[in-house]
Amino acid sequence: MSKQITLALAFILPVMIQVSQAQNQDSIVIRKMYTEALTNPAGYKSLEYLCTKIGGRICGTAKAEEAVRYVKKLLESMKPDTVYLQPVMVKHWERGNKEIAQIISKKKGKKELHVCSLGTSIGTGDAGITAAVIEVHNFDELRTIGKKGIEGKIIFFNRAADESRINTFDSYGGAVDQRARGAMQAARFGASAVIVRSATTSHDNFPHTGVQHYADTVKPIPAMCVSTNDADLLSAWLKEDPSLKLFMNMNCSNLPEVQSANVVGEIRGSEHPEEVIVFGGHLDSWDIGEGAHDDGAGMIQGLEVLRIYKALGIKPKHTIRAVAFMDEEIAQRGAAAYAEAAKKKGEKHIAGIEADRGGASPWGFSIDAPDPQLNKIKSWKPLFSPYNLWFFEKGGSGVDISNLKKQGSPLIGYVTDPQRYFDYHHSANDTFDKVNVRELELGAAAMSGLVYLIDTYGL
Amino acid sequence: MSKQITLALAFILPVMIQVSQAQNQDSIVIRKMYTEALTNPAGYKSLEYLCTKIGGRICGTAKAEEAVRYVKKLLESMKPDTVYLQPVMVKHWERGNKEIAQIISKKKGKKELHVCSLGTSIGTGDAGITAAVIEVHNFDELRTIGKKGIEGKIIFFNRAADESRINTFDSYGGAVDQRARGAMQAARFGASAVIVRSATTSHDNFPHTGVQHYADTVKPIPAMCVSTNDADLLSAWLKEDPSLKLFMNMNCSNLPEVQSANVVGEIRGSEHPEEVIVFGGHLDSWDIGEGAHDDGAGMIQGLEVLRIYKALGIKPKHTIRAVAFMDEEIAQRGAAAYAEAAKKKGEKHIAGIEADRGGASPWGFSIDAPDPQLNKIKSWKPLFSPYNLWFFEKGGSGVDISNLKKQGSPLIGYVTDPQRYFDYHHSANDTFDKVNVRELELGAAAMSGLVYLIDTYGL
Repeated sequence: MSKQITLALAFILPVMIQVSQAQNQDSIVIRKMYTEALTNPAGYKSLEYLCTKIGGRICGTAKAEEAVRYVKKLLESMKPDTVYLQPVMVKHWERGNKEIAQIISKKKGKKELHVCSLGTSIGTGDAGITAAVIEVHNFDELRTIGKKGIEGKIIFFNRAADESRINTFDSYGGAVDQRARGAMQAARFGASAVIVRSATTSHDNFPHTGVQHYADTVKPIPAMCVSTNDADLLSAWLKEDPSLKLFMNMNCSNLPEVQSANVVGEIRGSEHPEEVIVFGGHLDSWDIGEGAHDDGAGMIQGLEVLRIYKALGIKPKHTIRAVAFMDEEIAQRGAAAYAEAAKKKGEKHIAGIEADRGGASPWGFSIDAPDPQLNKIKSWKPLFSPYNLWFFEKGGSGVDISNLKKQGSPLIGYVTDPQRYFDYHHSANDTFDKVNVRELELGAAAMSGLVYLIDTYGL
Repeated sequence: MSKQITLALAFILPVMIQVSQAQNQDSIVIRKMYTEALTNPAGYKSLEYLCTKIGGRICGTAKAEEAVRYVKKLLESMKPDTVYLQPVMVKHWERGNKEIAQIISKKKGKKELHVCSLGTSIGTGDAGITAAVIEVHNFDELRTIGKKGIEGKIIFFNRAADESRINTFDSYGGAVDQRARGAMQAARFGASAVIVRSATTSHDNFPHTGVQHYADTVKPIPAMCVSTNDADLLSAWLKEDPSLKLFMNMNCSNLPEVQSANVVGEIRGSEHPEEVIVFGGHLDSWDIGEGAHDDGAGMIQGLEVLRIYKALGIKPKHTIRAVAFMDEEIAQRGAAAYAEAAKKKGEKHIAGIEADRGGASPWGFSIDAPDPQLNKIKSWKPLFSPYNLWFFEKGGSGVDISNLKKQGSPLIGYVTDPQRYFDYHHSANDTFDKVNVRELELGAAAMSGLVYLIDTYGL
C-alpha cells in the first residue's frame, strides 16, 4: 500500500466508520418506529372513533366542532409538550335535507338519479328547477353553443375521468374543473343550474361531491353532481330523447361564517425549539361519508408521529408539530391561519410534510424543494428500502402546507398507492372499513422515519 | 474530434439509434397494453362471474369442475389458436356440513368459536371429541410436554403471525407450519385433535383454512383452525380455567380421487412455436370464500394476457400460453401434470410467470433465474417505470411453475402489494368485492408487458 493511500485511509476510515455507525443507528430507530406502528393499533382505533362515532365533518358544522374537541383530547392523551387550538374563521355551508334530480322524459319515463349538492352551492328554492338539459364536455362547448342555446337550461357536464391514466390523481385532475368551475362558467351563459359527472374513474352509484366556486361577477346557480353510472344513463336517455327535462330540487345553503380551529400538538426541540418540522393532514371532511381516506387517515398519521416519538422516548432536537388542519375542503382557511400564525411568531419551518392522499400503502415522498434538499432526502432512500418505500421524487406537497413555501420551507407530500382512492373520495363510500390497518400504520411509520431523519440531519 | 472517436461513433451511433428506436417501439406497445387493460373491464367481469356465480372451488368438487368448464369457454371466446384441457387426477376432500368447536368451562360457561376444518382433515365422528386443551406455540413445546401430558388432549397451536414483519408473506410464513404440520406433530404424542390459530396478521372472526398434511407413519387426527379473535379468547379463558374442555365436531372427509383438469389456451409462436412462455395462476380455491384474491385474480390476469394480445393484434414469435392450474391448494397435481406433459412433448419453456399473490396493486417481479437472465429482466425496469413497477429482484416464483426449474427455465413471480392479502387469504372474506378493478387490470398489463419483452428479446 502506498504512503499516500495509507495516509488517505487514515483520514477517511474514521469518517466512513462514523457515517456507517450513524446509518446503523438510524436503521435501528426507524425499525423501532415501524414496530411500534405495526404492533400498536392506537391510530387505527382513533380513526375508527372519528369516522364511525363522529363521521362526516364539513367545516362550520357541529360535527366539525365535535371532531376538533375529539382530536384535541386525543393529542392531550399522548402527552406532548403543548396542545392548543388555533382559531380559524370558516365558511358554513349546510347540505340541507333535500337533494333530488329526476329525469322527466315523455319517451322514457321518469327516473331519479343518484345525486348530491356540490359544496357552497345555493339551493334551488322550494319549487326546484325543471328545465331541458344540454350535455357538454368542456367549457369551450359552452362558448360554441352560446347564450341563446343555454339560457334557462340545465348544463350537464359529462367529461369522464380518463381511466387509461396510470395515476388516478391525473384522471381526477383532468375532470375536476367541471365540478370546481362548471356552475360559474355555465352561469355566464344564463344556465339555470348545472349537474356534473362525478370526478372519479369508478363506475358506481355514489355521487362524489366536492367544492365548487362562484365568480363574484356572475349570478350563482345551483350545482349538483351525479354518480358516474347515472351520468351514463342521463347521457343515453338524452340521445334517445333530447327534449327530456330534469327536475332538480336542493335546499343547501350558505350561512354566516363561524369560528373553528386547527388542532396543534408539539414536542419542543431540545436544541432548536424555534425551528419547526410540521406534519399532518386535515380534520374536516365531506359530510356524506365518514372522511376516512380523505383525510382522517392522513390526519391520524400525523398524530401518530407524535405518539410514536413519545412511545419510544425519542427527544427531537427541533420542535416537531402535528397539525390537524381545519377547512381543507372548502377554502383552506386553516392552512392560511397556520401560515399567518407562524409568520407572526417568526417561526422557521425546516420542513413541512402533508398526508392527504388517502390511507393506502405508502409509496414514498413527493418533494417540493430545491435540489440540495431534494437530494438530501433522496440520499435517505436506502434507509426506507426495507420498508418498500421507493418513490422519492420532485413534485407537489399539499395545500395545507403550501403557504409555507413563501417562507422558503422544503415541503413534502406523503405519497400512497392511488388506485383505490377515488373510489371513495368525496363520496358516501369513504368509510372507516375501507382503510386497512397495516397500510395506515406503515404510513405513520414512514412519516415518523422521515421526521426523525430531518430532525437528526436538518434539511 | 479525433479520428478514433469519429470512427467509434460511426459504429456506435447506428446501434444506439436502433436500440433507442426499439425501446421507443417497446414503450408504445406496453402503453397500448396498459390502455387496453385499463379501459376494458373484461377480466374484471370474468372474475365477477367466477367468484359470485361459481364461487369457492376446491379441487375434486363439482364447483371446481364448473370452473373448469367456465374458464375453457372464456378462453375459447378469446379465440387464441388452441384451447384444451390437460387431465389431472386430484384428491377429493369434502368439508361436510358440520364444523363446530365449543368451549365448555365450569368457570366461564360455554362459548362457540369461529372455526373451520383444515383441508384434508378427517372428521371427528358423529359424537365429536371432547377433551382438555393444551396451548402451545411451536413443535418443541410438544416434546417438552411429552406423550404423558398430551395423550388424549386437544393441542391448541397459538403462535401468532408476526405483525411487525413488513411483508405479510413473512408473517404468514412464520406461522403456517402450525397449520400445515400441527396435526401430524401432535398426533406423534397421542393428541386427539388440534385447533390452530389462523395464519394471518388480521384480527378478525374469520377462520382462515388451508391444507394440512398427515404423515404416513402417524395416525391421522382431526384438525381445525380458529379465527385470531377466538384464538385470543380461548387463550384468555385457558388462563382463567386451565381445566376447560373443548368440544369439536366436524364431518369433513377424504373421498376417492377424481379426474379434473388444467385449462390451457395458447397463441402459437410465428418463429419459434416450440418455445413456450407460460403464465397464469390457479383455478381451484378454498371453498369457504369465493377465491377472489387467491387466486381468481392471478388466474384471470394470465388469461388477460392472451386477450390483450388478441385485442391489439400482436403476433408473438414464441408460443405464449395461459394456464389455469388445478389443485394448487391441496397437492399441486396440476403443476406436476403440466410439467410432465411439457417434458413428454419436449417443449422448451423460455420463461414461466406465476401470479398467485392476490389482485392488489402491482409491485413488479420476483425472478428465479441465473444472473444473465435476471439482469436482462432488470434492464427492462425503465420500461415499466411509467407504470410504477419498481420491484425487480431475485426471489421465488410460484409453486405451479416450480417444476419447470428442472428444465432450467427462468421463473418469475408477479409481485403485488402484500398488506391486505392475508386479511382475505383462505377465508370467507376472500370475495370479489375485495378486488379493485384497476389493481387487477394493472397486473394484467404488467404481465402482458413482460411477456412481450421476453417474446421480443428472448431470455
